[in-house]
Amino acid sequence: MDERTALGLLADRLPSAGDDAAVVDGQVVTTDMLHDRTDFPDGTTRYTAGWRAVGASLSDVAAMGAAATAAVAVYAAPSFDGAELADFVDGAADVCESVDAEYVGGDLDDHVEFTVATTALGETDDPVLRSGARPGEAVCVTGTLGRSAAALRLFERGEVERANALFRFSPRIAAGRALAGSATAMMDSSDGLARSLHQLAEASGCGMAVESPLPIDESVDDVAEDGADRLELGAFFGEDFELVCTVPEDELAAVREDVPVDLTRIGTVVEREALGASNQRGGAAENRVTLDGDALPDRGYTH
Amino acid sequence: MDERTALGLLADRLPSAGDDAAVVDGQVVTTDMLHDRTDFPDGTTRYTAGWRAVGASLSDVAAMGAAATAAVAVYAAPSFDGAELADFVDGAADVCESVDAEYVGGDLDDHVEFTVATTALGETDDPVLRSGARPGEAVCVTGTLGRSAAALRLFERGEVERANALFRFSPRIAAGRALAGSATAMMDSSDGLARSLHQLAEASGCGMAVESPLPIDESVDDVAEDGADRLELGAFFGEDFELVCTVPEDELAAVREDVPVDLTRIGTVVEREALGASNQRGGAAENRVTLDGDALPDRGYTH
Repeated sequence: MDERTALGLLADRLPSAGDDAAVVDGQVVTTDMLHDRTDFPDGTTRYTAGWRAVGASLSDVAAMGAAATAAVAVYAAPSFDGAELADFVDGAADVCESVDAEYVGGDLDDHVEFTVATTALGETDDPVLRSGARPGEAVCVTGTLGRSAAALRLFERGEVERANALFRFSPRIAAGRALAGSATAMMDSSDGLARSLHQLAEASGCGMAVESPLPIDESVDDVAEDGADRLELGAFFGEDFELVCTVPEDELAAVREDVPVDLTRIGTVVEREALGASNQRGGAAENRVTLDGDALPDRGYTH
Repeated sequence: MDERTALGLLADRLPSAGDDAAVVDGQVVTTDMLHDRTDFPDGTTRYTAGWRAVGASLSDVAAMGAAATAAVAVYAAPSFDGAELADFVDGAADVCESVDAEYVGGDLDDHVEFTVATTALGETDDPVLRSGARPGEAVCVTGTLGRSAAALRLFERGEVERANALFRFSPRIAAGRALAGSATAMMDSSDGLARSLHQLAEASGCGMAVESPLPIDESVDDVAEDGADRLELGAFFGEDFELVCTVPEDELAAVREDVPVDLTRIGTVVEREALGASNQRGGAAENRVTLDGDALPDRGYTH
């Protein structure tokens, strides 16, 4: 059973879960695990690992439109090197400070593989779920896409300094807060833009018609082999931690002024029928999201 | 560098950490990682694993004298079996329900070894730290000691049903709440009674004179080879998740009525000098805690 199937199985048992983070009495909590083999390519510094691991959980808080308050981490490794551990904590503390949250420590564990488990906390009285998108609304994304995909190529090339810098993304807490009053559906792009759009469309029972150009990061242009590869890295690869959201047309101009990063309108929420979606199994999912009129496949990074 | 040294190194960087849990604006948060090789012997059911892993974090909340509100977990394994996963979630949810907290899910991760990272949240306006013990106060422990040590022996013998039952401990949230108004120092016994006493004594700058008999669980009598082995399992092995605390003499009778489990007085807080402790390195730590007048070594389970 893959992770997605397993998560689906658990949805009935865990009514508070299922979105980017759980919300209990206004308290937001989300947890993740990253590890060497899949998440930290050769050349990733411990500072970057601390920043990125804690940042990934902060991104889930941002996706709920919540303020971030605190984060903790378990640092598990085959052995403990004082300098590496201090670097990790500095990275974790710095990413928290960048969003006005406090890194309050955690635990150490002896483990066969370098593994980091992070938990971030936040607060909101009015969380933005994935399920509120309505036809006619604008589909938007913060920042630029493909930075992590570009970083992986740079790690392979040995350009580790630039790759580490791209890996240390800014969790979109401030953007999420600014969007919270207007966005009708929101999640982060950690599974890739394409899968995020499908998940928002599915949760909201609608379709999405997206148009080029997408805001693909310029670092992707430096590493992509051709146009198809550029789209692959920008729209499917994921691990980017931007916010993907839907905003009513008449609130878009105002919210864009409040959001402290670029907010690019990439498309429009449509009725599912408008995309020729069938209610039968098979065709429906593929047709839920289109890019320039063609079906945008529901694939991407599976965590 | 071992975990204890590494944790000491980080203490300066993380002022909110260092106790059983961090406290930020009355919000308590604590995180742990458990895994197959070190924490779940052959025969441990996934239901027990879910109960125990989440329970370990709830125990840290209890040690602060806080109410528990919610918990999350990352379930990481080489593959996902639907029934195992459901059992794990049931165990996690049931231990939360037993202390009036909500299990709100978490994440799944693909990992070489079955690994669980748990985080528990709680609330308190007046956390009980480790540092408030004063000479003359009573040293107390909830429940009985050695259940996990006995369980390990039973797992080895193939008595898995009884072993699993012993492994599913009750996090002492209600006891911690009842003790919160009176206890001057408190932690859980997950590192073993001996080490817990040393840590409370060190944090509080005092000594502790403990007397037999200790409240060692009757399951230990069934598996111990002799008296020395019984003391080893009951006082040093740890992983028990009882509360070890200090309470002013004149509040002991009243607090004992409020605590819903047995609260055994095992000794008295004393001046460090009363135990003949020297201020020089070496002898001081060993002499900080005595059992029936002899030094109780500062050793136990290192997580």
